[in-house]
Amino acid sequence: MDNIGLIGMVSIIMAGLTIAVGSIAPAIGEGHAVTQALKSIAQQPDEANTISRTLFVGLAMIESTAIYCFVISMILLFANPFWTMVVG
Amino acid sequence: MDNIGLIGMVSIIMAGLTIAVGSIAPAIGEGHAVTQALKSIAQQPDEANTISRTLFVGLAMIESTAIYCFVISMILLFANPFWTMVVG
Amino acid sequence: MDNIGLIGMVSIIMAGLTIAVGSIAPAIGEGHAVTQALKSIAQQPDEANTISRTLFVGLAMIESTAIYCFVISMILLFANPFWTMVVG
Amino acid sequence: MDNIGLIGMVSIIMAGLTIAVGSIAPAIGEGHAVTQALKSIAQQPDEANTISRTLFVGLAMIESTAIYCFVISMILLFANPFWTMVVG
Amino acid sequence: MDNIGLIGMVSIIMAGLTIAVGSIAPAIGEGHAVTQALKSIAQQPDEANTISRTLFVGLAMIESTAIYCFVISMILLFANPFWTMVVG
Amino acid sequence: MDNIGLIGMVSIIMAGLTIAVGSIAPAIGEGHAVTQALKSIAQQPDEANTISRTLFVGLAMIESTAIYCFVISMILLFANPFWTMVVG
Amino acid sequence: MDNIGLIGMVSIIMAGLTIAVGSIAPAIGEGHAVTQALKSIAQQPDEANTISRTLFVGLAMIESTAIYCFVISMILLFANPFWTMVVG
Amino acid sequence: MDNIGLIGMVSIIMAGLTIAVGSIAPAIGEGHAVTQALKSIAQQPDEANTISRTLFVGLAMIESTAIYCFVISMILLFANPFWTMVVG
Amino acid sequence: MDNIGLIGMVSIIMAGLTIAVGSIAPAIGEGHAVTQALKSIAQQPDEANTISRTLFVGLAMIESTAIYCFVISMILLFANPFWTMVVG
Amino acid sequence: MDNIGLIGMVSIIMAGLTIAVGSIAPAIGEGHAVTQALKSIAQQPDEANTISRTLFVGLAMIESTAIYCFVISMILLFANPFWTMVVG
Amino acid sequence: MDNIGLIGMVSIIMAGLTIAVGSIAPAIGEGHAVTQALKSIAQQPDEANTISRTLFVGLAMIESTAIYCFVISMILLFANPFWTMVVG
Amino acid sequence: MDNIGLIGMVSIIMAGLTIAVGSIAPAIGEGHAVTQALKSIAQQPDEANTISRTLFVGLAMIESTAIYCFVISMILLFANPFWTMVVG
Amino acid sequence: MDNIGLIGMVSIIMAGLTIAVGSIAPAIGEGHAVTQALKSIAQQPDEANTISRTLFVGLAMIESTAIYCFVISMILLFANPFWTMVVG
Amino acid sequence: MDNIGLIGMVSIIMAGLTIAVGSIAPAIGEGHAVTQALKSIAQQPDEANTISRTLFVGLAMIESTAIYCFVISMILLFANPFWTMVVG
Repeated sequence: MDNIGLIGMVSIIMAGLTIAVGSIAPAIGEGHAVTQALKSIAQQPDEANTISRTLFVGLAMIESTAIYCFVISMILLFANPFWTMVVG
Repeated sequence: MDNIGLIGMVSIIMAGLTIAVGSIAPAIGEGHAVTQALKSIAQQPDEANTISRTLFVGLAMIESTAIYCFVISMILLFANPFWTMVVG
Repeated sequence: MDNIGLIGMVSIIMAGLTIAVGSIAPAIGEGHAVTQALKSIAQQPDEANTISRTLFVGLAMIESTAIYCFVISMILLFANPFWTMVVG
Repeated sequence: MDNIGLIGMVSIIMAGLTIAVGSIAPAIGEGHAVTQALKSIAQQPDEANTISRTLFVGLAMIESTAIYCFVISMILLFANPFWTMVVG
Repeated sequence: MDNIGLIGMVSIIMAGLTIAVGSIAPAIGEGHAVTQALKSIAQQPDEANTISRTLFVGLAMIESTAIYCFVISMILLFANPFWTMVVG
Repeated sequence: MDNIGLIGMVSIIMAGLTIAVGSIAPAIGEGHAVTQALKSIAQQPDEANTISRTLFVGLAMIESTAIYCFVISMILLFANPFWTMVVG
Repeated sequence: MDNIGLIGMVSIIMAGLTIAVGSIAPAIGEGHAVTQALKSIAQQPDEANTISRTLFVGLAMIESTAIYCFVISMILLFANPFWTMVVG
Repeated sequence: MDNIGLIGMVSIIMAGLTIAVGSIAPAIGEGHAVTQALKSIAQQPDEANTISRTLFVGLAMIESTAIYCFVISMILLFANPFWTMVVG
Repeated sequence: MDNIGLIGMVSIIMAGLTIAVGSIAPAIGEGHAVTQALKSIAQQPDEANTISRTLFVGLAMIESTAIYCFVISMILLFANPFWTMVVG
Repeated sequence: MDNIGLIGMVSIIMAGLTIAVGSIAPAIGEGHAVTQALKSIAQQPDEANTISRTLFVGLAMIESTAIYCFVISMILLFANPFWTMVVG
Repeated sequence: MDNIGLIGMVSIIMAGLTIAVGSIAPAIGEGHAVTQALKSIAQQPDEANTISRTLFVGLAMIESTAIYCFVISMILLFANPFWTMVVG
Repeated sequence: MDNIGLIGMVSIIMAGLTIAVGSIAPAIGEGHAVTQALKSIAQQPDEANTISRTLFVGLAMIESTAIYCFVISMILLFANPFWTMVVG
Repeated sequence: MDNIGLIGMVSIIMAGLTIAVGSIAPAIGEGHAVTQALKSIAQQPDEANTISRTLFVGLAMIESTAIYCFVISMILLFANPFWTMVVG
Repeated sequence: MDNIGLIGMVSIIMAGLTIAVGSIAPAIGEGHAVTQALKSIAQQPDEANTISRTLFVGLAMIESTAIYCFVISMILLFANPFWTMVVG
């Protein structure tokens, strides 16, 4: 197991693990937010617009943490400085 | 265990693990959202349209995190830069 | 333990593990959704049709994450590019 | 430990583990659904038919994830492509 | 540790583990269902027949996942294709 | 550590582990069922007979999963095909 | 570490582990049942006899799973077929 | 590490572990039972005698699982058949 | 690492572990009991004597499981038969 | 495995792990906050402005812990003092 | 690693671990008891004396399990019979 | 693996792990606090100022534990006395 | 790795681990107590003095378990009998 | 790996781990306390001063356990007696 194999191996492992682990919390958090939005609309149909708008801003905020993970995961696969170093 | 075996092994492991772990939270989150939608429809049948529309937008948002994982998983199986490197 | 044994081993492990782990959350999520549907029907028998329709769309959405896992699992067993490589 | 022993070993392990782990969530999910059905019948005896029908559709849907696992488990025992390869 | 010992060992381990792990969820799920049936009977004594019938159908459905595990466990002990192969 | 020691060791381990793990869920499930039966009797003393009968059927159903484990455990100790093979 | 040491070691380990693990769930289940019995007596003092009788039947049922474990534990210590075999 | 050291070691480990693990559930179960008894007495001071009697029977039943563990633990320390064998 | 070091090591480990693990559940169980006693006194000041007496009996019963562990722990430190054997 | 491989490996592992683990809590915390904001708007539509403002300040505060992790993760990938040292 | 190092090492480890683990449950249990005392005083200011007295007796009882651990921990550091043996 | 690699490796690991683990609790704690603040504002709009002020003091207090971790993490990366020592 | 390194290593590990683990429960327990005190003051402002006094006595009692851990931790760092022995 | 590397390694590991683990509970405990303070102020605006004062005393008490950990962590980095010993 030389450096190429080693660096390649951990890059693959972390690329998958980062997005897998990193998508758990956003999905659950968004599920809670959507759940509550549906409940609020059922209680206050007249405020559906305000609720939708707040919901979408919140979902974008939560989604951002999933995107941080996706960015790191893509960097590890296609723009990995350590891989560039050991390969070439 | 040379580099081919090593890279192939971890690619297989992560391809499966990523989608397996990554599908836990979306399924649970969607389950909560659908659960609440059914409850809200039972409480406010007149708002069924608004509730359905908000539900589908929310489900798409949650589903996106599962799709991130599916994309990474497919990349590892069929467009893996590290595998291309060590094989060829 | 040469490459054939190694790749075969992890393919078997991941094929089983992916579907086993990947079926946990959908089953639980669907259980919640069905549970709520039954409760809603008991509360609002007149809306049984709307509830059933929303339930089936939601179940299909949740089931999709289980099917992602099943697809990856079948690919690992019968269309595994790494196995093709090391065997032939 | 040659390849025959190795492939056989992991096939046995995964055949058992897949169905064991894969039966946890469906059993719990079905338990919840049956629980709620009983509760709903007690509340709305007049809707027993609609409730039963929705319950059975839901149970079939949940049971499907257990059957995915059972299929993979049986394939690993009796139609295992990797075993066929290394044995013969 | 030759192949006979290896295959025998994992067969024993998985035979026990499969039924042990696989009996957890059905027992708990059935416990919930029975619990609710008792509660429903106390609330609606007049519907005892409908409740009992739904309960027994549900218990059979849940018990089926335990039986899947028991079948795999028995196959591993008494009809194990891998054992037949390495022994004879 | 030859095959006799190996097969004996895992047989002992699994015999104990199977019944130990396999008795957790039935005990808890039966505890819930008995708990609810006592509560129902306190609420509806007139239905004590129906409740007791349903309770005993349910307990037998739950106890069956513990007995599956006990059967496998006894088979491993006193009718173990792998032990018969390696000893004799 | 010859076979005598090995078989003796795992017998001791499993004898202790089986009863230790196997006594967790019965103790908790019985605790719940007793708890509910006390609550029911406080609510319905007139039904104390029926409640006590149902409680004792239920406790005996739950205790049976602890006794399964105790039996296996004693067999491993004093009637262990594998120990008899290796000792001679 | 000969057989004397090995058997002695695991005997010590299991003697401590058995009573340590085995005292968790009884203590918690008894805590619940006592808790409920105090609550019931506060609600129904007139039934204090019946409640106390039922409590003590229940505590004895729960305590029995702790005593099973204590018995096994003492046997391992002072009447250990395996130790007698290897010491001579 | 000869037998003296080995037996001494595990004796120390188990002496500490037994009392550490064994004191968790009693402390929590006593905490619950005391908590409920305080609540009951606030509800029924007139029954403070009966409540206190029942509380102290219950605490003694729960404390007994902690004392079992303390006894085993002290035996391992100061009256250890295995240590006596290997030392002298 | 020399120092280049070692330092590179752990840098990749920690870069992924830091952002993956570090995004769990913020996503959940933000989910709770957004959930409550939607609930509050439904209860007090007139205070939607105050609620939104407090929500965004709170989200920024929570997001800051995710950004700490993202900063450390980026430093490990692109400004790693240890890597600079061992490479050259 | 001779016996001095070995015995010293495990003594240090267990001294710390015993008090660390052993202080978890008492702290939580006392927290519950104090919490309830404060609640009871707010409900029944007239019974503050009785509540305080019962609280202090209960705290002393719970604290005793922490002190058991502290005693064992101090014995391991300053009156360790095994250390005395191997050193001198 | 000499001292440079070793010290560098653990410095990287701990720098990431410290901030990753250390940001979990503050994010959750802040989420709870913000959640409650939104709920309180909806209940008492007139006290929005007092609530906001108390919220910000509390958030700062909670944030301080995250900052302790960030400080240690930065010290490990850029002012590490052990690294200075071994590098030279 | 001689005795100096060994004893030093475990002393450092346990010094940190003891206070880290040992501070978990007191912090949570105190959090509960303070939480309840604030709730009680809001309900019974007239009893603020009695509540504060009881709170401070309780906090001191809980804090004592954290201080036990801090004492052991300091002893391990600055008055370690084992270290004195091996250093000379 | 000589003593310098060993002692340095564990010092770094424990410095980070101590503050990371040790900041979990205080952050959560403070979150609870702040949460309750906000709730109490919304219920009793007139007692805001008493509540704030009690809150700050409580927060300081809880923060103290985080500071114990921070002190140990700093001692391990900058005043480590073991490091002083092995370095020189």
